[in-house]
Amino acid sequence: MAKKRLLVDMDGVLADVYAQFIAYEFEASGTRFKREDVVGIDEVQAFPNGKKHVYQKGFFRTIPVMNDAVDVMKQLSAKYEIFIVSAAMEFPNSLFEKYEWLDEHFPFIHWKHRVFCGDKSVIQGDILIDDHFKNLDYFSGKTYLFTQPHNSNADPKAHERVANWKNIAEKLLG
Amino acid sequence: MAKKRLLVDMDGVLADVYAQFIAYEFEASGTRFKREDVVGIDEVQAFPNGKKHVYQKGFFRTIPVMNDAVDVMKQLSAKYEIFIVSAAMEFPNSLFEKYEWLDEHFPFIHWKHRVFCGDKSVIQGDILIDDHFKNLDYFSGKTYLFTQPHNSNADPKAHERVANWKNIAEKLLG
Repeated sequence: MAKKRLLVDMDGVLADVYAQFIAYEFEASGTRFKREDVVGIDEVQAFPNGKKHVYQKGFFRTIPVMNDAVDVMKQLSAKYEIFIVSAAMEFPNSLFEKYEWLDEHFPFIHWKHRVFCGDKSVIQGDILIDDHFKNLDYFSGKTYLFTQPHNSNADPKAHERVANWKNIAEKLLG
Repeated sequence: MAKKRLLVDMDGVLADVYAQFIAYEFEASGTRFKREDVVGIDEVQAFPNGKKHVYQKGFFRTIPVMNDAVDVMKQLSAKYEIFIVSAAMEFPNSLFEKYEWLDEHFPFIHWKHRVFCGDKSVIQGDILIDDHFKNLDYFSGKTYLFTQPHNSNADPKAHERVANWKNIAEKLLG
């Protein structure tokens, strides 16, 4: 039987973009944000200098990897056909940085299985893990909402919530 | 009624990649190839220095636009929801160059409607215009094979052939 096709988002799922915003904001303004300070607000808007930082060279290249993401992705690779799907087109400077970031942290995901797009409604698959409703709501397969501060107090609606990569392992490798 | 979703390939459809290979080859070796010299051979393989040139800075940024592509794409935009879908992941250096190329020649196609991927089987839509069987064969919608030297003597199989952008206008704007 063909493996199910699993689509995995980058920022806020594989890449800990909040850790990066917090570090850049501290460096820029001396203010140390906590994740609970920015609940319910879009990531880029939530930080005073967020809109500037996403255009800064190196921002996307040096984002920390989400806890357990590498180990769980390796295990998932045996069971699923994985595609990494990132809405990278909004920040064209991020394209090459994201490619290099994937080479560093997820070299076992071949370039054929990487997608940089704008609107994810053009992507098809069996399962999608993403932290944004705008991506999950238009997907025809099974959807998982990865908990991040911007969505943590929202009704998950038709989507199943996952809190972290250990949680994904329980649900998808069980 | 919702507009049909039309997916359009870049190299060999919007971008005249053969013109670029011929120009680069002449510059490198003094040999002036004609399109009829390279019929039936994969583009990159067909030119002695092709495999080197695709990694050269500026190669993708300066490819000439295919005749009539801009005018016809503008007209198609009124009738279809267009996505430009390029297998850009094979040449990571091309990512930003392709983005800038689209900004220059097709600024009316928003970044939300641009996709850079590896394997196009992850992309869905109603119509696909592409010059490669490997992309058309796995597409579930209507397919058009754009004639290029590498495919010009091949059986179009289940795909409908289009010879150029005027021909696309006749078929899709009629």
